[in-house]
Amino acid sequence: MGAERGRAEPAQAQEEAALRSDIGRAVGFSDAVFAIIITVLVLELSPPEVQPGGMAHALAEQWPTYLAYVTSYLWVAVGWLNHKGTFHRVRCTDRGLHWWNLAVLFTTALLPFATVVLSRSVQAGDRADEVLAVVLYALVGVLLSVAWLGLYHYLSRHQDLLQQHVPARFFGVERGRALFGIVAYAVAALVGALGSVPVALGIFLLLPVFYALSSNGFYDLRRRMRRPG
Amino acid sequence: MGAERGRAEPAQAQEEAALRSDIGRAVGFSDAVFAIIITVLVLELSPPEVQPGGMAHALAEQWPTYLAYVTSYLWVAVGWLNHKGTFHRVRCTDRGLHWWNLAVLFTTALLPFATVVLSRSVQAGDRADEVLAVVLYALVGVLLSVAWLGLYHYLSRHQDLLQQHVPARFFGVERGRALFGIVAYAVAALVGALGSVPVALGIFLLLPVFYALSSNGFYDLRRRMRRPG
Amino acid sequence: MGAERGRAEPAQAQEEAALRSDIGRAVGFSDAVFAIIITVLVLELSPPEVQPGGMAHALAEQWPTYLAYVTSYLWVAVGWLNHKGTFHRVRCTDRGLHWWNLAVLFTTALLPFATVVLSRSVQAGDRADEVLAVVLYALVGVLLSVAWLGLYHYLSRHQDLLQQHVPARFFGVERGRALFGIVAYAVAALVGALGSVPVALGIFLLLPVFYALSSNGFYDLRRRMRRPG
Amino acid sequence: MGAERGRAEPAQAQEEAALRSDIGRAVGFSDAVFAIIITVLVLELSPPEVQPGGMAHALAEQWPTYLAYVTSYLWVAVGWLNHKGTFHRVRCTDRGLHWWNLAVLFTTALLPFATVVLSRSVQAGDRADEVLAVVLYALVGVLLSVAWLGLYHYLSRHQDLLQQHVPARFFGVERGRALFGIVAYAVAALVGALGSVPVALGIFLLLPVFYALSSNGFYDLRRRMRRPG
Repeated sequence: MGAERGRAEPAQAQEEAALRSDIGRAVGFSDAVFAIIITVLVLELSPPEVQPGGMAHALAEQWPTYLAYVTSYLWVAVGWLNHKGTFHRVRCTDRGLHWWNLAVLFTTALLPFATVVLSRSVQAGDRADEVLAVVLYALVGVLLSVAWLGLYHYLSRHQDLLQQHVPARFFGVERGRALFGIVAYAVAALVGALGSVPVALGIFLLLPVFYALSSNGFYDLRRRMRRPG
Repeated sequence: MGAERGRAEPAQAQEEAALRSDIGRAVGFSDAVFAIIITVLVLELSPPEVQPGGMAHALAEQWPTYLAYVTSYLWVAVGWLNHKGTFHRVRCTDRGLHWWNLAVLFTTALLPFATVVLSRSVQAGDRADEVLAVVLYALVGVLLSVAWLGLYHYLSRHQDLLQQHVPARFFGVERGRALFGIVAYAVAALVGALGSVPVALGIFLLLPVFYALSSNGFYDLRRRMRRPG
Repeated sequence: MGAERGRAEPAQAQEEAALRSDIGRAVGFSDAVFAIIITVLVLELSPPEVQPGGMAHALAEQWPTYLAYVTSYLWVAVGWLNHKGTFHRVRCTDRGLHWWNLAVLFTTALLPFATVVLSRSVQAGDRADEVLAVVLYALVGVLLSVAWLGLYHYLSRHQDLLQQHVPARFFGVERGRALFGIVAYAVAALVGALGSVPVALGIFLLLPVFYALSSNGFYDLRRRMRRPG
Repeated sequence: MGAERGRAEPAQAQEEAALRSDIGRAVGFSDAVFAIIITVLVLELSPPEVQPGGMAHALAEQWPTYLAYVTSYLWVAVGWLNHKGTFHRVRCTDRGLHWWNLAVLFTTALLPFATVVLSRSVQAGDRADEVLAVVLYALVGVLLSVAWLGLYHYLSRHQDLLQQHVPARFFGVERGRALFGIVAYAVAALVGALGSVPVALGIFLLLPVFYALSSNGFYDLRRRMRRPG
């Protein structure tokens, strides 16, 4: 028993190290999930069975699905770029990081659903439905931002998981991007519920643009602004 | 012929070695299957076509699907973490290990289905349906635990497939985790069928928590308990 | 122009080499396709909307789908193991190999469809439907075997694409396995059409067992038979 | 602050380099998306519920779906081979390349939809529907070609992202392939709308053949023509 323990002790140290390595697998799994989410709405794009001559009308009727596909695709693409921008700075993972990553994937997977609800409600034109859909979409946006906030916060507290070249304050600063999302989506929900639905939709469209431009982080964005090109 | 055989003999030894190497492929395939299973219920999350003003009611009606999505997601996420915790201790694979891995993937793929049946039955509130759904869910849980038991048992008997640093008794001990699942799901089925459905649901919810906390194995769990942090 | 050509010539030789390398990508793409095919029938496993108390009947009615899921899963798993057994002997790919690989994936993707048609027809019990379904299933089996035959034949003629350790006649011998499939499926179709449907189903069930046992090739199978364990 | 900046400056240079490396992830993500697109129509291949004896008729009715599956599969396979032919010449990626890649994936994902609309319209035989479907299919083809044009153009302007062995004018020349697609699809739309739908379909079928033969680029094609075998 004593001998076995003696043999086990260094093995434990090796294990501790091994538990912190599989970033390849976390990234491969995430890529597969992103790939499914980004194409999930294509599965919805099947033309309804129509009478001869009715194709044009049937296809035109589906415009909210097309719009939902395009905007969801862009949003998930931005999410993937942000994910890549984050994880290429990560050297290894532990269980906490896995769970925050799973939270990001979970909330990202809700985007296509919220987008379809929103586009259908706007098509139907009922005020109550529109407000509901705006609030639902904003709620998904808040949850998504909270997941990213948790991921950034976790990385800012676990410097040992990061690549050598990452500046010490990098992920601390990135939390600001996620916090901004929480506030912006909450404001959009309020604006949609109490004021104008189109203004809320405008905020929804601007946010992915912001996150696309800053997908390599605030650090990178500031550098680009100082040195164009 | 003799010359060819002479040439073939060392090639056979090389082949024997080569047959035991492709862990990368087994892991990549498993990750893709897990990714599909974990997002499969999002495909169900399409809002029903509704009359203007009917969106709130239609969305609220779908709550069992939401609940099924959340719980399935958590369960499959735990499965993925356990899979990762297992395979990062594996150095190479052979055919037996492939088949046990395929059994784990197969039974994991049944979880979303059983979860949807369960949540719909609870929504409908019919006692006979509820008992049926509890037993079905428990059956899937037992099958899943049996697959894991087989995988752990196989690894405990094939030390040569493991990484150097893995303690000799590691997967022998892990069998206990799988056995516990078999017993717990059987008990939950009995409790649901003869006693209280809510108690059975409580057991169903606690088991993933247990497997999440022990996803790096009993060894790791014990170590964490002794040395918090 | 002369100078550029001078610069281009060695680049062409390098390119020729580079065109023959990306086995990682062919394997990753194939794994993703196999993963989708193997889980595609789970998407069918959604319980029908039922009246309270009707769940047991509705679930029991779906047994052909369950059977189709299990048998398809096993068949696609065998296909994946054969694919792995083939490609871990391949060193690099060219365009011809890609197209044969795409043919294998294409015909494998037809299996779940043929399986569902078969199980539903047997459930309905109509003789004409059963014969049709048996012939359709056998046709998919023949196409699948033809694709594997083409892949093996191509590899037997392109020794330069293989790993060093692979015996010279390996893939020439493997063609026999694929030819056997073509004959066996044709026989099953005839037996089903002219004689007994259950006998045809028996052949359908035995063939995956044969291919599972020989998934590492005839070479390996013979070796195992001579030296058990 | 000054000290921190001093420490940050070389880190920035390292980052700049790191931002340009993750080709593995872009390729893995693209492979997963291609895998989903190529199998998406199999999900449509479920036999309709039929009365006993009605299977033959029900299956025969679905021929446009079978045709759509085969042609889509071939088209997406050609797209994947072109993608592989492009990216195995790429050394590293930046954000611009990611977005052009995402555009290629997005437009590729529209192919199965356009194909189903086209085959159903031809089955129904209504002239107005057919013209609409031809124009829709051609539009998707134009969008796809524009995405490839953008990708090739981007690579022709960013020589630093390419492998060493790639000839300087390679991607400049490849733009011609994409431009040809834009013109050919526009012509097909005109021919379909003003003249003969079958001629338009013929153009649609020939284009993938052209892109399959030239999937390694014009350079390679010319070389093959000069030196057969």
